[in-house]
Amino acid sequence: MLLHLSTWAEIESFLARSKTVVIPIGSNEQHGPTGLLGTDWLCPEIIAHEAQKDGDILVGPTFNIGMAQHHLDFPGTIALRPSTFMLAIGDWCRSLAHAGFTKLYFLNGHGGNVATIEAAFSELYAEASYAGRDRGFACKLKNWWDLAGVTALANQQFPVGHGSHATPSEIAVTQWAYPDSIKSANYAPQIAPTGPIREAHDFRARYADGRMGSDPGLATPEKGGELVKLAARSLLEDVAAFGAETR
Amino acid sequence: MLLHLSTWAEIESFLARSKTVVIPIGSNEQHGPTGLLGTDWLCPEIIAHEAQKDGDILVGPTFNIGMAQHHLDFPGTIALRPSTFMLAIGDWCRSLAHAGFTKLYFLNGHGGNVATIEAAFSELYAEASYAGRDRGFACKLKNWWDLAGVTALANQQFPVGHGSHATPSEIAVTQWAYPDSIKSANYAPQIAPTGPIREAHDFRARYADGRMGSDPGLATPEKGGELVKLAARSLLEDVAAFGAETR
Amino acid sequence: MLLHLSTWAEIESFLARSKTVVIPIGSNEQHGPTGLLGTDWLCPEIIAHEAQKDGDILVGPTFNIGMAQHHLDFPGTIALRPSTFMLAIGDWCRSLAHAGFTKLYFLNGHGGNVATIEAAFSELYAEASYAGRDRGFACKLKNWWDLAGVTALANQQFPVGHGSHATPSEIAVTQWAYPDSIKSANYAPQIAPTGPIREAHDFRARYADGRMGSDPGLATPEKGGELVKLAARSLLEDVAAFGAETR
Amino acid sequence: MLLHLSTWAEIESFLARSKTVVIPIGSNEQHGPTGLLGTDWLCPEIIAHEAQKDGDILVGPTFNIGMAQHHLDFPGTIALRPSTFMLAIGDWCRSLAHAGFTKLYFLNGHGGNVATIEAAFSELYAEASYAGRDRGFACKLKNWWDLAGVTALANQQFPVGHGSHATPSEIAVTQWAYPDSIKSANYAPQIAPTGPIREAHDFRARYADGRMGSDPGLATPEKGGELVKLAARSLLEDVAAFGAETR
Amino acid sequence: MLLHLSTWAEIESFLARSKTVVIPIGSNEQHGPTGLLGTDWLCPEIIAHEAQKDGDILVGPTFNIGMAQHHLDFPGTIALRPSTFMLAIGDWCRSLAHAGFTKLYFLNGHGGNVATIEAAFSELYAEASYAGRDRGFACKLKNWWDLAGVTALANQQFPVGHGSHATPSEIAVTQWAYPDSIKSANYAPQIAPTGPIREAHDFRARYADGRMGSDPGLATPEKGGELVKLAARSLLEDVAAFGAETR
Amino acid sequence: MLLHLSTWAEIESFLARSKTVVIPIGSNEQHGPTGLLGTDWLCPEIIAHEAQKDGDILVGPTFNIGMAQHHLDFPGTIALRPSTFMLAIGDWCRSLAHAGFTKLYFLNGHGGNVATIEAAFSELYAEASYAGRDRGFACKLKNWWDLAGVTALANQQFPVGHGSHATPSEIAVTQWAYPDSIKSANYAPQIAPTGPIREAHDFRARYADGRMGSDPGLATPEKGGELVKLAARSLLEDVAAFGAETR
Ligand code: NI
Ligand code: NI
Ligand code: NI
Ligand code: NI
Ligand code: NI
Ligand code: NI
Repeated sequence: MLLHLSTWAEIESFLARSKTVVIPIGSNEQHGPTGLLGTDWLCPEIIAHEAQKDGDILVGPTFNIGMAQHHLDFPGTIALRPSTFMLAIGDWCRSLAHAGFTKLYFLNGHGGNVATIEAAFSELYAEASYAGRDRGFACKLKNWWDLAGVTALANQQFPVGHGSHATPSEIAVTQWAYPDSIKSANYAPQIAPTGPIREAHDFRARYADGRMGSDPGLATPEKGGELVKLAARSLLEDVAAFGAETR
Repeated sequence: MLLHLSTWAEIESFLARSKTVVIPIGSNEQHGPTGLLGTDWLCPEIIAHEAQKDGDILVGPTFNIGMAQHHLDFPGTIALRPSTFMLAIGDWCRSLAHAGFTKLYFLNGHGGNVATIEAAFSELYAEASYAGRDRGFACKLKNWWDLAGVTALANQQFPVGHGSHATPSEIAVTQWAYPDSIKSANYAPQIAPTGPIREAHDFRARYADGRMGSDPGLATPEKGGELVKLAARSLLEDVAAFGAETR
Repeated sequence: MLLHLSTWAEIESFLARSKTVVIPIGSNEQHGPTGLLGTDWLCPEIIAHEAQKDGDILVGPTFNIGMAQHHLDFPGTIALRPSTFMLAIGDWCRSLAHAGFTKLYFLNGHGGNVATIEAAFSELYAEASYAGRDRGFACKLKNWWDLAGVTALANQQFPVGHGSHATPSEIAVTQWAYPDSIKSANYAPQIAPTGPIREAHDFRARYADGRMGSDPGLATPEKGGELVKLAARSLLEDVAAFGAETR
Repeated sequence: MLLHLSTWAEIESFLARSKTVVIPIGSNEQHGPTGLLGTDWLCPEIIAHEAQKDGDILVGPTFNIGMAQHHLDFPGTIALRPSTFMLAIGDWCRSLAHAGFTKLYFLNGHGGNVATIEAAFSELYAEASYAGRDRGFACKLKNWWDLAGVTALANQQFPVGHGSHATPSEIAVTQWAYPDSIKSANYAPQIAPTGPIREAHDFRARYADGRMGSDPGLATPEKGGELVKLAARSLLEDVAAFGAETR
Repeated sequence: MLLHLSTWAEIESFLARSKTVVIPIGSNEQHGPTGLLGTDWLCPEIIAHEAQKDGDILVGPTFNIGMAQHHLDFPGTIALRPSTFMLAIGDWCRSLAHAGFTKLYFLNGHGGNVATIEAAFSELYAEASYAGRDRGFACKLKNWWDLAGVTALANQQFPVGHGSHATPSEIAVTQWAYPDSIKSANYAPQIAPTGPIREAHDFRARYADGRMGSDPGLATPEKGGELVKLAARSLLEDVAAFGAETR
Repeated sequence: MLLHLSTWAEIESFLARSKTVVIPIGSNEQHGPTGLLGTDWLCPEIIAHEAQKDGDILVGPTFNIGMAQHHLDFPGTIALRPSTFMLAIGDWCRSLAHAGFTKLYFLNGHGGNVATIEAAFSELYAEASYAGRDRGFACKLKNWWDLAGVTALANQQFPVGHGSHATPSEIAVTQWAYPDSIKSANYAPQIAPTGPIREAHDFRARYADGRMGSDPGLATPEKGGELVKLAARSLLEDVAAFGAETR
């Protein structure tokens, strides 16, 4: 069930049977010579939308801009400062909690988001902690590649050249969902370098075409489809477990 | 051309021929008994995506959450505080300007966003004004119903019962684009009341089913299609004029 | 009744008969070659002070600095960033509401303030909306030229050359109130150009002497007096209507 | 010379002969049973406006709301949080400095403002310090009672019962300037208690009618006039010294 | 009793007999050619740690970074902006108050901290004042040199050359506590100049070696020991008085 | 070399031979029935102070308060909200970078700090990224237990009952350094439960005595000494590697 294609009355009904909502969250940022700028928010959106076809979960609108300051020297990247990102996550969560949701599940598509999202959750919990009251809701962050079985499958699909940015697995997922937008390019070296992540100037100097440790040419729509199917199935289980959780 | 389905290199190429980017912006909020929660961000997205099929414009990812605090007592609404909204708009604009865009065109789908978006633009301009320098980019806000001819067509389509929230015109647009998500409901009175907009409690007390002055049952997918076609054509003209603008 | 010339005990008594307070709000910014820097806060102050002589309304101190970033390249302008302006409006409102006022009426003298003041009101309402409680007070913004009959009179007085900044009507109001500070200057063209408002550099490049679309030389103290009398009368009616408003 | 009754061109001319501007700053807060709510902003305004009649100084608009949280339980008080106050002072200073002023002189009327104003100055200096550059302007805070000779005169006028809030000296100043607004009231004890300043509840519990250590009934318009004349003269000297100051 | 060398259960027990906690607070900043960078946080820490050996007070961890923007052009200085400093003080206070402490005593070692700490206290009180409730705790700021008898002793020890920054008294205190870190240097003039404090560039231009009005060479560990003993004794009395205070 | 026991001139000299500074960072929070409240800031301080005896590194003052909102229901805990924590880290880094340090190494003692510290680094980098310039310094976060060999040693020392909060390894480190503050207590179960971390109420309900998964009674000062020696040695190597790093 997609929240944005529902009426408020339908959400009211859903709340009578579940207090859990899934928010795909990612980033709009360069993904190397062939990856789509939307890769990191498209992947969790694709997986969550697929999952809700097979299970009674509610998927909210996609939070499509994240912590991508290091990619800003590549055009098309849109980034929120961590402080802005935290405020926005806070307002999303307060809104959903106000409606009665008590389990806020963020399915994440961007490794660079993790620290800031966790900090945002702590900021929300801190409000309640200083006030000496229950928060009333719990937040959970899950990277889609950490869903049960997914990284194992990706490792099997891409034993070498997976890397950590513009990976063949994430590109495969978008290829499966957007076959008309499959891109190709010449790039070298075959497998990109790795290293630390700092400001945008430093990043572009280290990673000339934007890739980190990856060979995105290994991606195929078929492999993407396998990943999506597995991830969607694991997502349903993980969401169910989170929804069932009591203190 | 859709930014999120492009690579950074494709955006670099686009920048060689245009410095204008279009951002659909709206809100995810209750839209009465039959309107989709996503209506206000779906409408500008639908129109902009349609327009880019016929003209060489670049459409960015949709800014899907806005200033909707007054709708919070209806579940499914997600709102940003104005202060958060302004910070987020600021970061989007700074990111796009950093890439070289000089004309940032926001196609808006939510009346309640207008004041805050204008304030956000002023906040951005103020940075340059205090520093005594050129800003380097210009922002423009356009509501989709203010595109040339659109309100005239809507008035003709819906001579009575258009209203100001959960209007038949916006619902028609989403019906055209999402025919599988057309909803129906009994509601009364036929035309909803009007009045001021304040906090969420006050809003729900005044507008029991969420509509303001409208009779959304007048919407049809066909009328939506007419609105989209006209709006998309006008958008291309308006974007071209903005892009051509010099001081 | 002027709040700042009253004691707290007198305000306590006033609150027993009315919960409405009027705050003149404006901006301190360049007003062309002959306009006073204080024009935009003086006008609502003049009108409100005049009105309280004839009716039992309470007029608070004048909020004299506003959203004037675009005028900063003309000396004497003092501007608040929108974010600062919103915080300050918030603190004024919280203070007045804490005292028991439930209707906060802002009589505005600067078009550039409108978006930010509306955003500030939404920020205040949002506090209550997220918390799921009544706000306890309502805010209203009224530009003095939107008071009943005022723009009609101005159009009649100044059929051409009224413009939108450093207008003959606002200058006439200050001439009536401060006859010792009437200024004259040579300027050309007779009627200033119009266009968009962006950062200060852009503004000064477009509007060399600060005027927008106006010929302020048309102002006379007599016309100002007529405007003040009418506006004061309309203000009393508008304040009464706001004070009488229930949900 | 009053900034708000000048044109921008007149300020441009003034800047050719002086880079100093005087800003009266105070608070709008309860001043005991007989004191005006505006006392703390009216006093520096009265003195500065008086001084500019006799010397070529520029006096800006009055900053009329300050750090008065402790008075909030008395109606009519309007307070800025310290953090808001600092941001607003910052924007005033940046605006004036942008115009070319290098000496920003704040004539203060409220003891409760001192810490926050000093913190605001440090915040402004810090911007330059972190950036490793000159600030380009200097800020000075002067309480009107600290102008040369003023406290000595007040001590002579009011050897007992001066106190620290709602003092006979400040009330005398407003009586001289606003003779039509002289108030009287019965109060006891003759001289109010003293003690610490904390939150508003605590304040009202300690100081039932709002006074601290004072007997405001000692005030007369004549004594107020003496104070104003002396303070205005001293202000001219102090502003001249500040303006002449080089590193 | 040192908080950081206690368990939470021991603090729980302490709270059963006292609600007062002492926080040493200072700054890490240049202290002239011979003074330690930590001087301003070491002094209150030394005194408070000494005092808790002789009396049943609870001393928290040291707040070791403060408002030192003006010293930033001397390496080793670490400064918080006033706005950051206020937020951090706020969080410390809220944490301690949440645990049940009602008297928060800050023993300060840096004159430059005073305004910002007072502003921070007002910010905390303001939260309660706007909300119309008791704050539930009281804050007190005491500079260690203002403890009973301390400045008198310092004046007797250093009748000339005490000055206001990198003073022989504060350096003596650190010499007594850290005899292995006593430094010597040639400097001239014997007594440093005095003047205003503005941004870091201005500060370093005025005070070439960092001293203000002082001759730190007068310091000896013995004099430091005398100061510590007296200050520690006075601290116990002052804390007891604060703890005993009721409205 | 300890920064706070140095003069600014000594730091200037140090900068001529190294641009790296080490900041111990932790948290002041409950550590179960026997752990010191200061454990998480004492551990990195102990290790860094030990290391600087054997190698030419510069150790700054300890950042002793961190992200500990979840522990607030245990008295003695002092927590910064993530947003405050980020601002403070930002000011520390800007101060040190202003002095010329280009490698800022944070030795962390609290797992709960990690996300927020990483977000703070990103916030700092983002300033440069939006501005299109080099940041000029690099930040590194290292948990002391992640120093080479340390976790392996701890696993060997405490094959069962190590857990994740109030661990025997961290308690052993403080026992070695503060032998006079070794605490004992009865607690049950022997090994504490594990689970998620949310707001303070939830935390205390889950973890009655504050421990998570640990049996702190396994700690001994001797084991602590072994950990400190190894960690100090590894720290010197890690700092050297970071200092030597070029793009
Ligand atoms: Ni990715
Ligand atoms: Ni709508
Ligand atoms: Ni105007
Ligand atoms: Ni006063
Ligand atoms: Ni000092
Ligand atoms: Ni720990």
